[in-house]
Amino acid sequence: MSFERKLQLATDFYQLSMGNVYYLDDKKEQIAVFDLFIRKNPCGSGYTLVAGLEQIIDYIENLKFDEEDIQLLRENHPEFNEDFLEYLRNFSFSGEIYAIPEGTVVFPNEPIIRVKAPLIEAQLIETTMLTIINHQTLIATKASRVVYAAEGDSVLEFGLRRAHGPEAGLFGARAAIVGGCAATSNVETEYITGLPSKGTMSHSFIQSYNCELDAFRTYAKYNPDNLILLVDTYNTLESGIPHAIEVFKELREKGNLQKGYGIRLDSGDLAYLSKQARKMLNEEGFHDAIISASSDLDEHLIKDLKLQGAGINLWGVGTKMITSYDCPALGAVYKLSQIEDGEIKPKIKISNDAIKITNPGYKKVIRFYDKDTHKALADLIALDHEVIAEDKPLVIFDPIHTWKKRVLSNFYIKELLVPIFVNGKKVYNSPSVEQIRAHAQEQKSTLWEEYQRLINPQIYHVDLSVKLWNLKQELIHRGDH
Amino acid sequence: MSFERKLQLATDFYQLSMGNVYYLDDKKEQIAVFDLFIRKNPCGSGYTLVAGLEQIIDYIENLKFDEEDIQLLRENHPEFNEDFLEYLRNFSFSGEIYAIPEGTVVFPNEPIIRVKAPLIEAQLIETTMLTIINHQTLIATKASRVVYAAEGDSVLEFGLRRAHGPEAGLFGARAAIVGGCAATSNVETEYITGLPSKGTMSHSFIQSYNCELDAFRTYAKYNPDNLILLVDTYNTLESGIPHAIEVFKELREKGNLQKGYGIRLDSGDLAYLSKQARKMLNEEGFHDAIISASSDLDEHLIKDLKLQGAGINLWGVGTKMITSYDCPALGAVYKLSQIEDGEIKPKIKISNDAIKITNPGYKKVIRFYDKDTHKALADLIALDHEVIAEDKPLVIFDPIHTWKKRVLSNFYIKELLVPIFVNGKKVYNSPSVEQIRAHAQEQKSTLWEEYQRLINPQIYHVDLSVKLWNLKQELIHRGDH
Repeated sequence: MSFERKLQLATDFYQLSMGNVYYLDDKKEQIAVFDLFIRKNPCGSGYTLVAGLEQIIDYIENLKFDEEDIQLLRENHPEFNEDFLEYLRNFSFSGEIYAIPEGTVVFPNEPIIRVKAPLIEAQLIETTMLTIINHQTLIATKASRVVYAAEGDSVLEFGLRRAHGPEAGLFGARAAIVGGCAATSNVETEYITGLPSKGTMSHSFIQSYNCELDAFRTYAKYNPDNLILLVDTYNTLESGIPHAIEVFKELREKGNLQKGYGIRLDSGDLAYLSKQARKMLNEEGFHDAIISASSDLDEHLIKDLKLQGAGINLWGVGTKMITSYDCPALGAVYKLSQIEDGEIKPKIKISNDAIKITNPGYKKVIRFYDKDTHKALADLIALDHEVIAEDKPLVIFDPIHTWKKRVLSNFYIKELLVPIFVNGKKVYNSPSVEQIRAHAQEQKSTLWEEYQRLINPQIYHVDLSVKLWNLKQELIHRGDH
Repeated sequence: MSFERKLQLATDFYQLSMGNVYYLDDKKEQIAVFDLFIRKNPCGSGYTLVAGLEQIIDYIENLKFDEEDIQLLRENHPEFNEDFLEYLRNFSFSGEIYAIPEGTVVFPNEPIIRVKAPLIEAQLIETTMLTIINHQTLIATKASRVVYAAEGDSVLEFGLRRAHGPEAGLFGARAAIVGGCAATSNVETEYITGLPSKGTMSHSFIQSYNCELDAFRTYAKYNPDNLILLVDTYNTLESGIPHAIEVFKELREKGNLQKGYGIRLDSGDLAYLSKQARKMLNEEGFHDAIISASSDLDEHLIKDLKLQGAGINLWGVGTKMITSYDCPALGAVYKLSQIEDGEIKPKIKISNDAIKITNPGYKKVIRFYDKDTHKALADLIALDHEVIAEDKPLVIFDPIHTWKKRVLSNFYIKELLVPIFVNGKKVYNSPSVEQIRAHAQEQKSTLWEEYQRLINPQIYHVDLSVKLWNLKQELIHRGDH
């Protein structure tokens, strides 16, 4: 029996436990507003690239509890009221969701997803949304950094075997493509990206033949259009590359050498070996041979190899990207910002740590662009009903160090949140993964290089509108949380 | 439309690319032996706890390519031969698999899974097996360390929202239970573990009420048997704990205070706050109140908090365990060790790094136990046909520093690999997750504390039999790889 996934139960038990109480305590009609946002860019990045919305939409559209689920919950949790279980049996999401589209650059504290729904529904979807967005956004951002380091060379995603299970491999690869990877080795992604997966051979392929040259020749015979030969099975410089060159020569003589041919290095010192390989290939006239490399690569190692003049022009990145090894979790949170029970009550969560105090109310995110350069200038989190005039200068200020002021002028604005669900109905169609990748590319082109630097990037300004800031202060001082 | 998983394609493209060549080059009858093993214990651990076998079995039993898959491959990969696609359409695994059962303690270089199958089949299952075992084994080992640090206190798995997607959350939680966690917050696990999920309330629950006391009272009203009150929403010592005590008193007066009640700390200094909490609770006679804590915990922080006398007796561990944050990937590999094409050819993969040279042949793993203490003494990797006499002393030696010798006596042995598939048929039934957890507990009890130390543990001996060592040397010196 193959285990059937039950995504509707991929949640923390407390969502159900609270739901039961809300239901019994007659709070099920209460409307709540929640914001999903990050507190920190991952991996020391100057920005975060959103990914995962398509899967969240899919989850919410299909969110139902079947008879088997109800029976399971009844047996394992005798405290659940039968009326609450009946409510779950008839559940479907009825609320409103706005979100920032995938591939958009975002920054800490900006609502990436804004949910306005009956409290009980808004809670039920919290954990799964967080899990999906935390994962894909993390990997998309990591991939974006790797691609940045590759300076225009293609990057291939090779990490499936080190992913946190097959699904993490699948959606991690999807996110890597959003982040700018050219392709992935993961075949299952073909169903969700429409792009062919890539790869050629492993060491065992070569070992299964009596000699390396036989293995190369045989592979070339059946794959003239996809001929990247793995050269480090025995000895890269003394055996692998000379044998590859021999095969390339044979093909060239017969006029069968197709564009895109080359070699792959998978161990040893990649700077030294790739420079030697380039020299050996060039000496035989194979100037256009690809030199690809894979071996524990990440953005920092790629940058260093490039600085050392490595001859690599195709990068296969596995473990370090698919797990975001140096920062393997993104901590997006989901916080209550408003309750409506007859009257509208904006809510904040207080903390001794100023940056952990949440922003109250029903909000939107505005990005300011320079009219001449089209570069992003700053973002503003404002109350949803606020109107920003584009034709006059605007003073913005740091929400914590309020004496830090800045005047924006010559700008146009864009609102980042778009409607996804209205009255429980989906009103948004996800673009293709290729379109999302193109959008991400365009988004990054609006960011000054200073925000994209791999280490210690400049901090992008995300300020609060005067109205929002005043509301927040009022709630803090009133002690009304 | 909900996306349907296609686990049969959760593989690296090169497995198919090589399969196509094997098929066309008439190598499809060639039998290969592959070993799946780790090279290093994760997280600085002295051992590794195997997990994921049940999901691997499920994957292999159900491994089929449907019409839609064939069409997708045909369109995206014109190099695939129609006969090969036909072969895939009729594919089912026909080989033999031996594996070390889940919950068993293993060490570097030991075959955890041994596959003997037609080359093409053995390759097709490589990536998915690695992905599953790398993930679950990593998290089980991490969890085992966290549970060790908790010194007998219960540990709850709380990490779903920070997992690498819902599936990583599900099977990560399963692995955490294998590693010794008492329970998880992840509701979906109830389907695969049979254990109820756990949890009570979030900050938003409390915020949705007009005051903390109302929220606590309401929760208590509907959950007398599951009453862990979250006390840090406003002010832990001045508001949260006093309000919790008020509710506990009200329940006690009515005789409604049920065992298992207590509080949860989710922020602030957990050592200080838990000691204060213990004092405040004890002063009111609530000596048996549970004090649970969650907030970026891992094995090292738990150990430190215990050293500082924290009053915590229930630990909720999230991000750091579900992602194995300090070591988020396990690098198990899958290496060819034998090819049979008419004659039997053991294979090794050479490397400049001695510990990266693989072990050739069709092998088994033997564990030696002391007859008196029942502690594990050492492991031996041997050729499958070798017989070890239990009634006389055995000299074992380090396979790299061969002058390091040791005499084993007064021992009994156990072979670790058991049959899972024979001639493509499943011959093994996975135990329940609870049984696996019990097995893991028993396994760890056979390890001296020195191997379980969290930092810089003693290295357990895994040696090679004389016959295997000789075979390896012969292949190295013959240059026959």
